[in-house]
Amino acid sequence: MLTLLLATAVSLAGPPADAVPSPPTSAEVLEAASASDWHPVPAADLLILDVDGKRVTIELAPAFAPLAAANVRSLVAERYFDGLGIIRSQDNYVVQWADPQEGSPEARSLGSAAKKVPGEYTRPRAGLAFAPLASTDAYAPQVGFVDGFAVGSDGERAWLTHCYGAVGVARDVASDSGNGSSLYVVIGHAPRHLDANITVLGRVIEGMEVLSVIRRGSGAMGFFAEGEAPIPIRSARLASELPEAERPTWMRLRTDTPTFEALVRSKRERHETWFAHPVGAIGLCNVPLPRRQVAPASD
Amino acid sequence: MLTLLLATAVSLAGPPADAVPSPPTSAEVLEAASASDWHPVPAADLLILDVDGKRVTIELAPAFAPLAAANVRSLVAERYFDGLGIIRSQDNYVVQWADPQEGSPEARSLGSAAKKVPGEYTRPRAGLAFAPLASTDAYAPQVGFVDGFAVGSDGERAWLTHCYGAVGVARDVASDSGNGSSLYVVIGHAPRHLDANITVLGRVIEGMEVLSVIRRGSGAMGFFAEGEAPIPIRSARLASELPEAERPTWMRLRTDTPTFEALVRSKRERHETWFAHPVGAIGLCNVPLPRRQVAPASD
Repeated sequence: MLTLLLATAVSLAGPPADAVPSPPTSAEVLEAASASDWHPVPAADLLILDVDGKRVTIELAPAFAPLAAANVRSLVAERYFDGLGIIRSQDNYVVQWADPQEGSPEARSLGSAAKKVPGEYTRPRAGLAFAPLASTDAYAPQVGFVDGFAVGSDGERAWLTHCYGAVGVARDVASDSGNGSSLYVVIGHAPRHLDANITVLGRVIEGMEVLSVIRRGSGAMGFFAEGEAPIPIRSARLASELPEAERPTWMRLRTDTPTFEALVRSKRERHETWFAHPVGAIGLCNVPLPRRQVAPASD
Repeated sequence: MLTLLLATAVSLAGPPADAVPSPPTSAEVLEAASASDWHPVPAADLLILDVDGKRVTIELAPAFAPLAAANVRSLVAERYFDGLGIIRSQDNYVVQWADPQEGSPEARSLGSAAKKVPGEYTRPRAGLAFAPLASTDAYAPQVGFVDGFAVGSDGERAWLTHCYGAVGVARDVASDSGNGSSLYVVIGHAPRHLDANITVLGRVIEGMEVLSVIRRGSGAMGFFAEGEAPIPIRSARLASELPEAERPTWMRLRTDTPTFEALVRSKRERHETWFAHPVGAIGLCNVPLPRRQVAPASD
């Protein structure tokens, strides 16, 4: 038997006589969610990687990085990523894939994709359904959510944040030096100092545990050294490219609803018996942003 | 060649004519640190694990968890951990070791160690050399550093925070149900809602990359399911138990010095050419807390 669980929610024999009803737990909130609380992710925004035989799914965020998302779609169409590899794994930071020959005559062709894509570090906040999170944040004057993504804002501009699982466009010094052929994924504590300094184009919604356990590279900044083989990316496909029968359907929990507010509340105020005090606070990158895969309708 | 590096610091040909001198980088700050900026870690606070042949070193923080640290030292002396295993690996959360037989007649004996240890969730701030960090924090009214650890405080009380690498005492509901026989290590974005809700007794200062890549458990909360073998902990020793010739010596960068202030500044204001804007902010768990191993003096 294993009783020394961490953060277990334990149901005791019933509330004390003077108890007020506890607000619902996260699980209860999600169970009570209605169909309209969920929003389908467009198939063209689902990037499905085969990483050494395991599936990793990225949800692109074209509202924040339209040019980078479009270029990545072109690279996928060119099959640029098929056979590429993860060449960097830096503890508490990122994994990254790239063509190790990039810049040399042996480099893969980008085909019809652009070699230079202007940086999309921030965008106007106007036009976004920004749902604020009541929280203090070390890095951004305001934080909240847009279409299921964690966002920072100064009121005028908005940007995707580097929470766990964020996917960004590696670049050199020039702001247009990233084109999406090399992407990185945050696998540790959010490196929020990168926010608004680089293009974030989406986040991993399936298979983080495939990326996060990749052995760390022994070279500088976690790059694999001589003799450390890259982790192969066997293929990269958009869901929209797949035959309908094989196409996964993903839903994201809307972040502009009372259901989402209740979910945040359940994580902000911890009423499970385990908690010695109910916390009363939540950080941006600690808010769950649920996604779920649904079986295709059989009709 | 690989030019698409992320967050590379690139030296260009020289500053523009109107440039003011940039403050030193983190590397420059550490290079310029004097002997008095470093403080030795007591050998009795260094817990050295052999995890499947790889070394993991934990620095205990008896100033915050004297009872738990003492009980862990007793368990080490009893060789309780030798042959135990890591039985949980939950993505973006924790790895945890424990006796899977705990609570059953087949459970390992704790020997002379206590079965119940009062929780040490917070302690009085009085008596601590608290070096505040100028930062807003979602979880604590004040944040800062004590003896090289990241700390939260409300002015009266202080507590170790659940930054990456924090080591805590797994417990059940009762506050004295954790005794240090099962410990967890944070391997993802800081679960700060656990702060002041459980005893934190130290942090990993070497070998995080051993723990963070352990394959995730497929059971609930990342526990290994049937057929998923635990990762063996072959031995656990205090440095103070080892023969002097084998005893590692570790130094921690003091956090109450101008050198540390300069280190924080170098991470708060990013003057490297790569950064499109210099950030101007830093979160508690993004502050580096350097440790270094030194060769024993040959005399």
